[in-house]
Amino acid sequence: MAATVAARLAGLGITLPTPASPVANYVPFVVSGALVVVSGQGPFVGEERIVGKLGAGLDIAAGQRAARLCFINLLAQLQAACAGDLDRVRRVIRLGGFIAATADFTAHATVMNGASDLAVAVFGEAGRHARTTVGVPSLPLDFAVEIEGLFEIA
Amino acid sequence: MAATVAARLAGLGITLPTPASPVANYVPFVVSGALVVVSGQGPFVGEERIVGKLGAGLDIAAGQRAARLCFINLLAQLQAACAGDLDRVRRVIRLGGFIAATADFTAHATVMNGASDLAVAVFGEAGRHARTTVGVPSLPLDFAVEIEGLFEIA
Amino acid sequence: MAATVAARLAGLGITLPTPASPVANYVPFVVSGALVVVSGQGPFVGEERIVGKLGAGLDIAAGQRAARLCFINLLAQLQAACAGDLDRVRRVIRLGGFIAATADFTAHATVMNGASDLAVAVFGEAGRHARTTVGVPSLPLDFAVEIEGLFEIA
Repeated sequence: MAATVAARLAGLGITLPTPASPVANYVPFVVSGALVVVSGQGPFVGEERIVGKLGAGLDIAAGQRAARLCFINLLAQLQAACAGDLDRVRRVIRLGGFIAATADFTAHATVMNGASDLAVAVFGEAGRHARTTVGVPSLPLDFAVEIEGLFEIA
Repeated sequence: MAATVAARLAGLGITLPTPASPVANYVPFVVSGALVVVSGQGPFVGEERIVGKLGAGLDIAAGQRAARLCFINLLAQLQAACAGDLDRVRRVIRLGGFIAATADFTAHATVMNGASDLAVAVFGEAGRHARTTVGVPSLPLDFAVEIEGLFEIA
Repeated sequence: MAATVAARLAGLGITLPTPASPVANYVPFVVSGALVVVSGQGPFVGEERIVGKLGAGLDIAAGQRAARLCFINLLAQLQAACAGDLDRVRRVIRLGGFIAATADFTAHATVMNGASDLAVAVFGEAGRHARTTVGVPSLPLDFAVEIEGLFEIA
C-alpha cells in the first residue's frame, strides 16, 4: 500500500509551514474545476530566507535550497486548497521556475532540481511534472528563486 | 443586486479601448472550454505608452500605472472573448506579471498591485486571482510592464 | 480535403527529432484532460544549437531560427503526447517565449515570430495561439530562446 503524502513528508522531516498570506489584492491559489493554480512562492520558511543572485555570490547549493523552500511553500498552499488532504493531489502538472541570475549563469536547471526532486520524493510518479526554468534579473524582495505551480486534484 | 461589470467600469471612469490586434501570427486570446487565455498585454491606451525600467528612471507610481494599463488591455480582450458581456466572467484565475527592472529592484509586487487592485475593483471577489510577478531585463517595444491573464467564463 | 499535419511537415521539409528526455525529475509533457502542457524547450536539433543573447552578438535572424527550433522540439514532444498522431491537435492554445536579451533589446516579438509562423504553417487556423514574449538575462545552457507550450488535443 502506498505511503500517504503526509507519511512521506514526515519521513522527509518536513513540517509544512502555515501558508503565507498575500498582502495585496491577490490570493495564494485559485481552484478551477480539477485544476489548482498556485501563485509564485518565494524561498522562505520560518526564519530562513534566501536572497541574492545565482552567478553573483549565491552558490548552486544555496539556489537548490531556495527552490526546495519554494516548493515547500507551494505544498503548504496546495494543502490548503485540498482542505488539508494532500492525498487528493492527482498530479503535479507544471512548475514554472524563475531563477534570479546574472547574464552569464547557465545552471538554472540544476538549481530548479531542488524543487523537482522534492516533488517526486513527496508525490512519487504523480510528482513528475512539466517545467519551465528561466533566469530573471530580479525578484520581489530580492528572492533568489520564485516558483509557481499547476496541480490536478480529485 | 450586484453592480454589473459595465457599471463598475463606468464608476471607475474607465472606457475600454478597442482591443489591440497582434501584428503577427498569433491572436489576442484563445478560448478552451471555460478558460480564456489572453496574450501578454503592454502598457498603452490611446496616446499613452509607458516604457523604460523600474529601478532606472521609472518610479513606482509609473510602474503601477503601467500595470493598470496592461490590465485594461486584458479587459478589452476579455470583453471580446465574451462577445461583449463581461458579466460572463466567473473568475480571474491568474495574472502573470513581467516587470522590466534592474538587478537591484525589489518592489515588483508593489508595481503589480496596479493590476491586481483594478481586478478586484472591477470584478469584486471574482477578481481575486493567483499571480506570479518577476523582473525581466527587457520587454517588447521597451514596455515597462507586460501582463498575461487566465480567466474562467460562463 | 485539408492536408494532414504530417503532410504539411513534409512539405516544409521538417523531420521531427526524437523528443529530448529531461535529465532530471521532470517530464517533457503532462496530459490533463484535453490539455497538453509541454515543458520549456531549447533551440537545438541534431548538431545545431543556438546560444548567446539578442542584443549582444546574436542577430534577429539567428533568434528567429532559435525560436523555430524550440517550436520543432515542442512539436516532437506534442507528437509523443498524441501517440504519434499530430492530427489529434485541436488547437495551439498558448506559447510562452523567453528571449535571452540585453536590457536595451526591444525586438522580442520579431524573434518569437520564428515559432508563431511555424505554428500556423503546420496547423493552419488551429495554430493561431495566444502568446507571451519577454526578455530574460540568461537561460539554461546559455540557450538563446526557450519556449513552452499549451495545446488542446482530441
